[in-house]
Amino acid sequence: MYIYLNNDFVEAEKAMLHVSDLAIQRGYGIFDFFRVRKGVLLFVEDHLDRFLHSAKLMHLQVPYTKDALHAILKDLAHRNQQPESGMRMILTGGYSPDAYQPVASNFIVMQSPLVVPDATTPKSVSIITHDYVRDIPEAKTLNYTMGIWLQPKVKEHQADDVLYHHNGVVTEFPRCNFFIVKKDGTVVTPAHHALKGVTRKRVLELSRKGYAVAEGVVTLADVLEAEEAFLTSSTKRIQAIVKIDGRMVGNGTPGKVTTQLLHELLEAERNYVSENAEG
Amino acid sequence: MYIYLNNDFVEAEKAMLHVSDLAIQRGYGIFDFFRVRKGVLLFVEDHLDRFLHSAKLMHLQVPYTKDALHAILKDLAHRNQQPESGMRMILTGGYSPDAYQPVASNFIVMQSPLVVPDATTPKSVSIITHDYVRDIPEAKTLNYTMGIWLQPKVKEHQADDVLYHHNGVVTEFPRCNFFIVKKDGTVVTPAHHALKGVTRKRVLELSRKGYAVAEGVVTLADVLEAEEAFLTSSTKRIQAIVKIDGRMVGNGTPGKVTTQLLHELLEAERNYVSENAEG
Repeated sequence: MYIYLNNDFVEAEKAMLHVSDLAIQRGYGIFDFFRVRKGVLLFVEDHLDRFLHSAKLMHLQVPYTKDALHAILKDLAHRNQQPESGMRMILTGGYSPDAYQPVASNFIVMQSPLVVPDATTPKSVSIITHDYVRDIPEAKTLNYTMGIWLQPKVKEHQADDVLYHHNGVVTEFPRCNFFIVKKDGTVVTPAHHALKGVTRKRVLELSRKGYAVAEGVVTLADVLEAEEAFLTSSTKRIQAIVKIDGRMVGNGTPGKVTTQLLHELLEAERNYVSENAEG
Repeated sequence: MYIYLNNDFVEAEKAMLHVSDLAIQRGYGIFDFFRVRKGVLLFVEDHLDRFLHSAKLMHLQVPYTKDALHAILKDLAHRNQQPESGMRMILTGGYSPDAYQPVASNFIVMQSPLVVPDATTPKSVSIITHDYVRDIPEAKTLNYTMGIWLQPKVKEHQADDVLYHHNGVVTEFPRCNFFIVKKDGTVVTPAHHALKGVTRKRVLELSRKGYAVAEGVVTLADVLEAEEAFLTSSTKRIQAIVKIDGRMVGNGTPGKVTTQLLHELLEAERNYVSENAEG
């Protein structure tokens, strides 16, 4: 297995950064993550756009054009031959002499096997909530201090994940987006203080074909009154939220809209794979 | 120059971490930083206590006792022979197989030359403010996402630093603590949502000898009404805040109490150095 590190493909175990890197010194950097399926980089254009956007928001220079980045990712995929996997790009603040000011970034691309079965029934998950807003929520930064810190609390409550809200206004999970289906059938996802997920974008597109859709304000009270609630992520696709802080959401099982959207997302994935498969 | 890395003293340029470390993947870890003066590790017991406290708060295991840590720091200082320097201990989330769950930490100690002259007049600094609370403020985590992100704004306003507040209640700087001297002579520092700095602790001790002292609530309005305001840190000692968001603080010059406390801090430093100097 190879890792791409600053213009070189190196053997994975040799991909090292000096401890003066600003990610190690100050947790400063951005990243993006996407799945590889049947050797195809899933929705990679969207992930590249977001990666470039995150870098810009965080005042980091990406040392490649979007096309050059895409070529690096494809080259790495060819070398590693991991048709079912996850690929992660990381851009750090670099080897900062004063351990504070970002300088020329270090750039890493790494790949790991990741098999996500095509289950057509959404997984049911139970969640807890926590009052928190990520630092620069529109950027996919390296800062998961809160998400990781909350893990013992998630386990203690026998929950699967933790939903962030601020004063009762819901935003996102540490690594997923959040949706509800209201009693009137409208599909709603938080508009503000949430990362614009690539699966979120896909699910919004798919929802617009059959439902009223809104990006707006979702409160914890809205969740308890909702017909359905679900989360989205590149790794988890769509999972049904059936319990929040110990209270049942909807009827406590994956809802019709959630299930329908999962089917459509799976189809969108298959279509993307066949359209982008190499001969 | 040597760096201590996971039980070994290695040449500084060879101190590398694999990119799977949780600091690089997720910015997860803690650290502490202190000055070395005339070869003496300044107030090192307090820094070790805080390092162990930060680790505990962040669910990270420190692989050494406090005494063993102290011995490592002294050993490194002997090898490097950098009598005027800064020393930084870092504890990361380790080489996490799932890039999320902390595992056995990586532990680093590094040292860099740092000369801090014994100026007896406090430096005058101009600051701006920003509404923000650090994630787990009692822990000295690696997360400086906001502090570093704000640097261009600090420069744009020709300021020296940025003071965090939440809804007008002042907390701390990204890397310093904050104090005011009220019109009645009371020395006050924020009690909550601020890192308990080692210099903050020392300044509180010194203040109690001559002034009324309070750890409590400080608002932005309090700052504008204050007689004096100053910041404290291990590197900056005490600096006078003479301007906040473009408005003058006190009479716009370093105040009497600020100056007096700097003199006493310098004396406390000198006393610590002579009491802890090795034969």
